[in-house]
Amino acid sequence: MAPPTPKLIVPVDLKQPPWLQELPLHNRWHPEIPPVAEVKTGEVFRVEMVDWTGGAISDDNSAVDVKTLDLSTVHYLSGPIRVVDTDRNPAKPGDLLAVEICNLGPLPGDEWGFTAIFDRENGGGFLTDHFPHATKAIWYFEGIYAYSPHIPGVRFPGLTHPGIVGTAPSTELLNIWNERERELEETGLQSLKLCEVLHSRPLANLPSTKGCVLGKIKEGTPEWERIAREAARTIPGRENGGNCDIKNLSRGSKVYLPVFVDGANLSTGDMHFSQGDGEVAFCGAIEMSGFLELKCEIIRDGMKKYLTPMGPTPLHVNPIFEIGPVEPRFSEWLVFEGISVDESGRQHYLDASVAYKRAVLNAIDYISRFGYSKEQVYLLLSCCPCEGRISGIVDAPNAVATLAIPVAIFDQDIRPKTTNVPTGPRLVRNPGLPQCTYDGNLPTTRNPCATTGQ
Amino acid sequence: MAPPTPKLIVPVDLKQPPWLQELPLHNRWHPEIPPVAEVKTGEVFRVEMVDWTGGAISDDNSAVDVKTLDLSTVHYLSGPIRVVDTDRNPAKPGDLLAVEICNLGPLPGDEWGFTAIFDRENGGGFLTDHFPHATKAIWYFEGIYAYSPHIPGVRFPGLTHPGIVGTAPSTELLNIWNERERELEETGLQSLKLCEVLHSRPLANLPSTKGCVLGKIKEGTPEWERIAREAARTIPGRENGGNCDIKNLSRGSKVYLPVFVDGANLSTGDMHFSQGDGEVAFCGAIEMSGFLELKCEIIRDGMKKYLTPMGPTPLHVNPIFEIGPVEPRFSEWLVFEGISVDESGRQHYLDASVAYKRAVLNAIDYISRFGYSKEQVYLLLSCCPCEGRISGIVDAPNAVATLAIPVAIFDQDIRPKTTNVPTGPRLVRNPGLPQCTYDGNLPTTRNPCATTGQ
Amino acid sequence: MAPPTPKLIVPVDLKQPPWLQELPLHNRWHPEIPPVAEVKTGEVFRVEMVDWTGGAISDDNSAVDVKTLDLSTVHYLSGPIRVVDTDRNPAKPGDLLAVEICNLGPLPGDEWGFTAIFDRENGGGFLTDHFPHATKAIWYFEGIYAYSPHIPGVRFPGLTHPGIVGTAPSTELLNIWNERERELEETGLQSLKLCEVLHSRPLANLPSTKGCVLGKIKEGTPEWERIAREAARTIPGRENGGNCDIKNLSRGSKVYLPVFVDGANLSTGDMHFSQGDGEVAFCGAIEMSGFLELKCEIIRDGMKKYLTPMGPTPLHVNPIFEIGPVEPRFSEWLVFEGISVDESGRQHYLDASVAYKRAVLNAIDYISRFGYSKEQVYLLLSCCPCEGRISGIVDAPNAVATLAIPVAIFDQDIRPKTTNVPTGPRLVRNPGLPQCTYDGNLPTTRNPCATTGQ
Amino acid sequence: MAPPTPKLIVPVDLKQPPWLQELPLHNRWHPEIPPVAEVKTGEVFRVEMVDWTGGAISDDNSAVDVKTLDLSTVHYLSGPIRVVDTDRNPAKPGDLLAVEICNLGPLPGDEWGFTAIFDRENGGGFLTDHFPHATKAIWYFEGIYAYSPHIPGVRFPGLTHPGIVGTAPSTELLNIWNERERELEETGLQSLKLCEVLHSRPLANLPSTKGCVLGKIKEGTPEWERIAREAARTIPGRENGGNCDIKNLSRGSKVYLPVFVDGANLSTGDMHFSQGDGEVAFCGAIEMSGFLELKCEIIRDGMKKYLTPMGPTPLHVNPIFEIGPVEPRFSEWLVFEGISVDESGRQHYLDASVAYKRAVLNAIDYISRFGYSKEQVYLLLSCCPCEGRISGIVDAPNAVATLAIPVAIFDQDIRPKTTNVPTGPRLVRNPGLPQCTYDGNLPTTRNPCATTGQ
Repeated sequence: MAPPTPKLIVPVDLKQPPWLQELPLHNRWHPEIPPVAEVKTGEVFRVEMVDWTGGAISDDNSAVDVKTLDLSTVHYLSGPIRVVDTDRNPAKPGDLLAVEICNLGPLPGDEWGFTAIFDRENGGGFLTDHFPHATKAIWYFEGIYAYSPHIPGVRFPGLTHPGIVGTAPSTELLNIWNERERELEETGLQSLKLCEVLHSRPLANLPSTKGCVLGKIKEGTPEWERIAREAARTIPGRENGGNCDIKNLSRGSKVYLPVFVDGANLSTGDMHFSQGDGEVAFCGAIEMSGFLELKCEIIRDGMKKYLTPMGPTPLHVNPIFEIGPVEPRFSEWLVFEGISVDESGRQHYLDASVAYKRAVLNAIDYISRFGYSKEQVYLLLSCCPCEGRISGIVDAPNAVATLAIPVAIFDQDIRPKTTNVPTGPRLVRNPGLPQCTYDGNLPTTRNPCATTGQ
Repeated sequence: MAPPTPKLIVPVDLKQPPWLQELPLHNRWHPEIPPVAEVKTGEVFRVEMVDWTGGAISDDNSAVDVKTLDLSTVHYLSGPIRVVDTDRNPAKPGDLLAVEICNLGPLPGDEWGFTAIFDRENGGGFLTDHFPHATKAIWYFEGIYAYSPHIPGVRFPGLTHPGIVGTAPSTELLNIWNERERELEETGLQSLKLCEVLHSRPLANLPSTKGCVLGKIKEGTPEWERIAREAARTIPGRENGGNCDIKNLSRGSKVYLPVFVDGANLSTGDMHFSQGDGEVAFCGAIEMSGFLELKCEIIRDGMKKYLTPMGPTPLHVNPIFEIGPVEPRFSEWLVFEGISVDESGRQHYLDASVAYKRAVLNAIDYISRFGYSKEQVYLLLSCCPCEGRISGIVDAPNAVATLAIPVAIFDQDIRPKTTNVPTGPRLVRNPGLPQCTYDGNLPTTRNPCATTGQ
Repeated sequence: MAPPTPKLIVPVDLKQPPWLQELPLHNRWHPEIPPVAEVKTGEVFRVEMVDWTGGAISDDNSAVDVKTLDLSTVHYLSGPIRVVDTDRNPAKPGDLLAVEICNLGPLPGDEWGFTAIFDRENGGGFLTDHFPHATKAIWYFEGIYAYSPHIPGVRFPGLTHPGIVGTAPSTELLNIWNERERELEETGLQSLKLCEVLHSRPLANLPSTKGCVLGKIKEGTPEWERIAREAARTIPGRENGGNCDIKNLSRGSKVYLPVFVDGANLSTGDMHFSQGDGEVAFCGAIEMSGFLELKCEIIRDGMKKYLTPMGPTPLHVNPIFEIGPVEPRFSEWLVFEGISVDESGRQHYLDASVAYKRAVLNAIDYISRFGYSKEQVYLLLSCCPCEGRISGIVDAPNAVATLAIPVAIFDQDIRPKTTNVPTGPRLVRNPGLPQCTYDGNLPTTRNPCATTGQ
Repeated sequence: MAPPTPKLIVPVDLKQPPWLQELPLHNRWHPEIPPVAEVKTGEVFRVEMVDWTGGAISDDNSAVDVKTLDLSTVHYLSGPIRVVDTDRNPAKPGDLLAVEICNLGPLPGDEWGFTAIFDRENGGGFLTDHFPHATKAIWYFEGIYAYSPHIPGVRFPGLTHPGIVGTAPSTELLNIWNERERELEETGLQSLKLCEVLHSRPLANLPSTKGCVLGKIKEGTPEWERIAREAARTIPGRENGGNCDIKNLSRGSKVYLPVFVDGANLSTGDMHFSQGDGEVAFCGAIEMSGFLELKCEIIRDGMKKYLTPMGPTPLHVNPIFEIGPVEPRFSEWLVFEGISVDESGRQHYLDASVAYKRAVLNAIDYISRFGYSKEQVYLLLSCCPCEGRISGIVDAPNAVATLAIPVAIFDQDIRPKTTNVPTGPRLVRNPGLPQCTYDGNLPTTRNPCATTGQ
């Protein structure tokens, strides 16, 4: 009858670099990365994790670390964790792994996080053509609340969640990923006009041995070389879950992940204190180290029972999520709209990405009237609990996307008024937002009508 | 001290066709369509409206009316309404018109609505390549609740809202619209690869005299001919608001619309009893006739105060919305995810439209396991209060979009279970969903892995 | 397949007094008041109702009508409505009647209401020892919102609900009521110390022929005389439901009422545009005329299945309620607490009524610092969507009750601030709150510490 | 720029008894109990606390520990904590102390709690006349969720909160407490009829040296003897806050406490994983050890600015609370009603306590039909997130109280159904609920109509 205190199965030591952890981390998806721990269904266990960069970003007033971050090393994940049932039979390909998030939070003694705009030549972000400079904001936590010395006048409760939770791919699934992403990388610039508007580079992040960390597989061995050349990067979300960045995946939520290898080999990381829908600044959530308390169940043969493949193979599936009643709720929202017409005035066809870009740009300009720089708002909309919706996707040629911001997070009333011009009396623009120069040559998108420069 | 009973300024008579209403309707946007009524700021007034088709769809068991609907006639709007301040000075270009939705609902005696999938050769919809047949579902209202004889086992409260609320464009803005949409129509098929995946046709709906109704302007006059050739179709949302389809724009909400012509010339229509984010089936909301009670305020010079143009001219703006505390709220959600890989397995670059398409397809297949046909679910997800989110838009190459469905709208628990296979015991598939044959030649997208045909 | 437009089964004509309605009203509970209409289970029907006073209170600037109201005439109810199943078998004693509130609202053309403090000699209220004067506030509706010329600076959405919904008592139940209330009236002042603190008079309202209206039973007949002498007043809620004043009983709710007579004989009235928990000013909701759209189901033998009598007979039961997802929700609340120590400093034993009284007094004094008179706040807390909670009922000797007020209903931030004294800059106290003198002799409770008089 | 990790200022060691903690605890209110720690305004600090009994209740299958608990020792509180501003000036009498709850939770390694019905001769509870036996349920935590091996079929997220947060009373205030409670104890049984219905004993818990723990004041010294004879028990909430048991006082809430002594001397304890409004079983929350992370601000002269005394002295005040947007929210509720008629059928006058008692009894009987014993439901309603409301407090003679239960906490649908009798198919009544015999002589209240014994 002893109470089940969650067992810590993956500890991290923040004083050590990510590659020197007692239980090794990994930053690639591959079926052959061996499990570092095993859990039984029904038991609650605890996993600690470093922040996605493994400590590369400092709590200071400079954005140089953001500008120079080696993106080949991200995201550092905890796991893989092998899941077996109470008879010690492992999860099997074709099962569904139900992962309940019982609890989560920052690691004691490390109650801070960062939100960053990446340099246009090093990762960029959703609006990188408008905001090419590496920029950083630090956030401090007061329990469930976050506030930033760099973005005064806002404070909000975190809908804390892991950005990444996923199972290991099978070899077959891994090959599918690598092929389709390579094809995009090779032909995308010519054929996909979207990338004229969404300016991030590269189009895809293909496997690379540079920066690769593969858990228990020793670097330098032939096995390591082979796997490193095959293993998928962790940047995009895919069929195995991975970097879903679903901001509501907080305490009390459940993820139903497809199982592709024996034991499921669950990995998780990229903890977010809070994130806005879309995570628009790329390193846009409040990134932090943290812990998860999880409980797994196995739904035997669950992929067939619950998932329909949507593509050429039975592996083309997506996880399902269950969001529970436990989260901050707001009652008043200010909503910005965008349609699929880009900044040059060009019409796109039912393009929700372009529409959302315009909605975010509209919100940035609006809120900047209340005493903020545009970079401050861009960072804020990346990490505060705002909602990005696809409102209309059928009324050709315009997709309509909306961005809804809870007005209660501001210490002033940001709603339009019949009588008063916004003057931001309670806020003083903080001139010290850590920022670097942009030294590249890619053209910045100008908005000819903006009252102030971007 | 007499209480201000809302004045009915635009009545409609549902026994008359839309072109024979006492106060004439209109179905185009043009600066020269004369106002049919005038209101003062601060007064609550009432506007009635026909459904978007003007009564062309019947409460019966056949989808022939859907298949044969003449789309050149939509949407029938009530207005324009000229707005003046208490000194009778009209709203001026550059002002913002704040429109509060005080109340709304169906018209007494007409408490029903319809949701339809349009034929692929006649309007289509978000998933028209999967579901090319004209299909219809009728909904009946029990106060705030809707239920359908065609989709048993669900019942939900309506977040009732007007699909369209907008101001008249100026000539300059109208020209911008017509130019950019014509360019898309002429060159889009070649240059925009998205349309390979989103199969609706046409790419844009350019001005046409066919079906045109222009309010007080008499058909057949030279003025009518000129305006009909210039006037913009009402299908897409644009800078003036228009067909925004923001499902939360219900009682207690506010719209801040830019003013482009003297008096603002507010028009509204396309009442929805309920709609899901995206309105995926095109005629996807529960479409109905209805009434609005509105109150207007003028924010003088508000466009400059609050809106930043996002494009080559000062007219490239979007409205702002304020969502209040009065709406159905749900606490448990089941969430489906999609990534920007299409049904053929091809990788797209940060394409939220493709990702959302996959999320909707995933949801349709999942819910169809509980005793529904896929068309029933497609119709349901178009009109129930589900949320479509852009969860991740920066993790190249995959955009992540999610579709969240409140589980409480079903009379069975649709969540995955560890032990039970879904068998839909409480539901009997209704074989009588009104549907027509698809007689066209466009290829249907097949999902080779689906267990049952689509 | 025609849509079921709700049938109007009880119309009211607001131009006629309550006793001259086409379908007669009634203001007493008695098994022999004959039904005025019949409905079948499953059909949605519409009932109109006068306000609880039958039009005795006017939309003007005088409280004389409040002071002189003849309370023997309240509440005017619509009904009784006989409920039968689809085979025309009536609801039977022992059944449960499930009544769903599909829709409701004000009557068109009568979009206003009133909140009143009754004179201490004529009904009083929860705080009548503090506020003995007859006082009135008028509210106007803008769709779902209410605002008052008498209480500036607040505006809130209505959680509109019927104060009274109930079934007819059987003769046996009626006798139980009359006996227990007569005993209280006769012996209560001596034995129940509570009434020293809660100063309303009388303790109970026993049957009286004065003011009595009995529906189809003709006044002056012997039958009328007999029934009028037996029939229970409608003031308190009882086993049949009746005046429950459950403020969340709005659109989409359900009431499960016990059935005591053949056909159930459902009556309803006392429409509230909005009410705070407790309805503290007695005529404390925003009282109005209105309509309900209802749907009934019969749960055969449901009293035995679902209700356990709590008292000496099987009739000592209470209804059950189901509250749905459709209501205004607020996210920030300011909470006032009271303990069971009265204004004289005397300790009471776990007395939630005394504790709640102190919580309400605390809230009134607090909010009056923001530019209001105490009477204005008393009226406001009676009718705004505030929540009255029993927080602790076991920690002898103090019950702890709380009153939570949504801060969003004010146009100023009423929360305590570290730096600023509240000065109510945006509000000007309205000196014209309609009020009468109190001419009685009952002692007013003084709060020796209050900074300003009460 | 180092992030402010919350300082642990009051640690507890659960392996030691409460009287052997490094920083001594206390279980009385008295101005002369010296502070054990000091904090500055603006800093976040951490306080640990034992459960209210100091570890006297075990995680086992026997209720003997509940039956024999020495109530003279409760509640063990952490503190007092002296609060000073950034210039080290202490909080002063007349100030308000704003205490923000930044975070809270169980202590790591002690993730369990208990809910208990106390024996009628030893504390009792709200329904002790119905349920006189000492009974216990153990709860285990899975992150934010609690479940009990003793009450199967329910699981709910905790609205975790401290039952007690308060400032030290001044000598004057302490004297007021002792006098009024002594008077009640001496004369209450004769004069207050309520106690015939609410059967707990004693009426008040007067100061006693037995079981007394006074922090840094050494037991056995003359000072200890004097203070122990004066110091107030911690059972009831009072003017200093104390045992308020406000269930929504969770993460992100604020308490505004009046300051009566230099430094405020803040104490806290009685952590609840979850509690229902009223905490009806007395030891009714899920009681646990835990931690708080708090931040204090001082509002100078805040009592005068914000509080109006309600009683004979300026000390007769109550704290104010602010509830934030971060808590579990439910959308569907089943509501039970009670009126102020007791189980014998006797009418009480506007007595919210009696009405709430009947509402709770109604709920217990109802839910017990779904496979539970009545004691299980009594325990459940004490600790699950149910809401106890005062719905009507003015409609003489009946107060109407309601108890609303979120239906989502059950693994079966507990709502009434038209067609089915509840049979509780998914639940098996757990016969092993730890319970003791009741050996006393007080009469049990019988409900003559209940289908099964109580």
